Amino acid sequence: MNDCILLAHGSGGRLSHELIEQVFAPAFHNPLLARMDDSAVLPTLPPGARPALTTDAYVVQPLFFPGGDIGRLAVCGTVNDLAMLGAQPLALSAAFVLEEGLPLPDLQRIVASMAKAAAEAGVPIATGDTKVVEHGQADGCFITTAGIGAIPAGVDLSGANARPGDAVLLSGTLGDHGLAIMSQREGLRFEAPLASDVAPLNGLVRQMLEATPRIHTLRDPTRGGLATTLNEIAAQSGVEIVLEESAVPIRPAVQGLAELLGLDPLYVANEGKLIAIVPEPDAGAVLAAMRAHPLGQDAAIIGRVQAGRSGRVSLHTVLGAHRILDMLSGELLPRIC
Amino acid sequence: MNDCILLAHGSGGRLSHELIEQVFAPAFHNPLLARMDDSAVLPTLPPGARPALTTDAYVVQPLFFPGGDIGRLAVCGTVNDLAMLGAQPLALSAAFVLEEGLPLPDLQRIVASMAKAAAEAGVPIATGDTKVVEHGQADGCFITTAGIGAIPAGVDLSGANARPGDAVLLSGTLGDHGLAIMSQREGLRFEAPLASDVAPLNGLVRQMLEATPRIHTLRDPTRGGLATTLNEIAAQSGVEIVLEESAVPIRPAVQGLAELLGLDPLYVANEGKLIAIVPEPDAGAVLAAMRAHPLGQDAAIIGRVQAGRSGRVSLHTVLGAHRILDMLSGELLPRIC
Repeated sequence: MNDCILLAHGSGGRLSHELIEQVFAPAFHNPLLARMDDSAVLPTLPPGARPALTTDAYVVQPLFFPGGDIGRLAVCGTVNDLAMLGAQPLALSAAFVLEEGLPLPDLQRIVASMAKAAAEAGVPIATGDTKVVEHGQADGCFITTAGIGAIPAGVDLSGANARPGDAVLLSGTLGDHGLAIMSQREGLRFEAPLASDVAPLNGLVRQMLEATPRIHTLRDPTRGGLATTLNEIAAQSGVEIVLEESAVPIRPAVQGLAELLGLDPLYVANEGKLIAIVPEPDAGAVLAAMRAHPLGQDAAIIGRVQAGRSGRVSLHTVLGAHRILDMLSGELLPRIC
Repeated sequence: MNDCILLAHGSGGRLSHELIEQVFAPAFHNPLLARMDDSAVLPTLPPGARPALTTDAYVVQPLFFPGGDIGRLAVCGTVNDLAMLGAQPLALSAAFVLEEGLPLPDLQRIVASMAKAAAEAGVPIATGDTKVVEHGQADGCFITTAGIGAIPAGVDLSGANARPGDAVLLSGTLGDHGLAIMSQREGLRFEAPLASDVAPLNGLVRQMLEATPRIHTLRDPTRGGLATTLNEIAAQSGVEIVLEESAVPIRPAVQGLAELLGLDPLYVANEGKLIAIVPEPDAGAVLAAMRAHPLGQDAAIIGRVQAGRSGRVSLHTVLGAHRILDMLSGELLPRIC
């Protein structure tokens, strides 16, 4: 087999089959993928469960960064979008657009990372596709994943379910993913290196829903960061959300680099964090469940939902002032995911 | 709104939301998409139905071609991959990688075409994602679709199910998609212009399965063409497949251009055709059902399955000779889908 990707690897012919047999099938090995038909056939869903469907395209640069790579990102992002509706992931698909000339070891490293992340999340990569475009297109590799999950009967999470009086919880520190990518791009080195937080959150969500099924909203603050995600929820639910700046956990190294680069961590992408909006009486139990999970150790209650002005998000600053947090405008960090 | 795509349309912030609200949501309008959560929530499957999952990335050049465009291709390709397992499509996802500078009217035209194709197939586009990459990447637009379908109880189609004695049917003429793209790229003009056959095949499949549920294999001969697809089936099923050259329908205009360009239509991509492998006693009923559908009017019995040599495909030529049809090697037509 050649040591870099050729256009013929996307032909559908012999080299495409070799790529599947020598790279994808051994790494993703599972009975669903092994069928090699046009679609994967999945087990029937549990009785009463509703299927959830989601997709995301990944174009992150660089392909490899501290704490992860485009493959881990593509698996975790789709698992997390399912988890935010309380769905346990049943199967993922993965479609690759590869650039002619991509070194095969790079692809193998990405695929191995996807397999590892899928194993962490407990979900098979059941079907896929590969296209190859000419050198100079596609920056090495773009990956689009899609996923099916099963929402158990009785679970109903939505950005539209936040209610006045609810508590707003965050599962950990903000800005780690975005600043890790930026430090890599800028070639910055620190004593305590930054690392992306990219991780599958379905295990954390399962533990939270076991603590109480009365969670109203879950959402992962990816592109646009915490501020943009809360704006979406405030608009969908027709409520105001007020944050306490002092309660929002941010690592000192992230805060420092953000200041250096003129970035606000409230608008920076995260890939292993979630926001939970829960009725006030359940906030303590949900917080305890989050802190009991390795991915929620730094969880905190960071604000509350008010009737107030529909769609508004505001921040009560450490200096005692109030600042309106608008949705992100412009493009802060291109190609962050 | 700006008249071309900016990096900020992929930020996850205000311009991303405007793109969704002004372009995607009005065109794809449906209750599943309207929820605007991280995943779409689908209705529960019919009792006993198994879910099927598939995905494909589309990088075709040019984006617009006679008979279709990248949007129609992306919808039909995924619908067809579901249909080849006998699954009725329940929902699609669509992920866009857009190039900075793509004219907005081009995107709107693509999106309108996707909506039309989805309506033809009777399937909602339930969720999606958009990323933007710098000018010079992504050739305007790449689209990855994924789809969920429901395989009714009792339907079991696979490339591994072909049996000696089975008849091999083809739903219509070969090579139309690939040659239409090539004529566009080469700037060739003909009195009878070529057009891609891109179409959703789930209606045709439904009609065939109503004629008899005893179909063994369905597959659409896309990249690699009829010859490569039959090689896959012959290998999966451990059988030999013998074709009658005189029985394979090819339009004279396609045959003529193929000879001019030195292409073999047996290896050229189709996007609205299917191969059916059925027990000999059912072949007549399936053929009649195919011909009764607008997308199967030119259907024909083109060959048979033999015990013979496992994995081999051969052609009985009009001159009475036998020719081995191997899998496509090399890359015949880059970026054909």
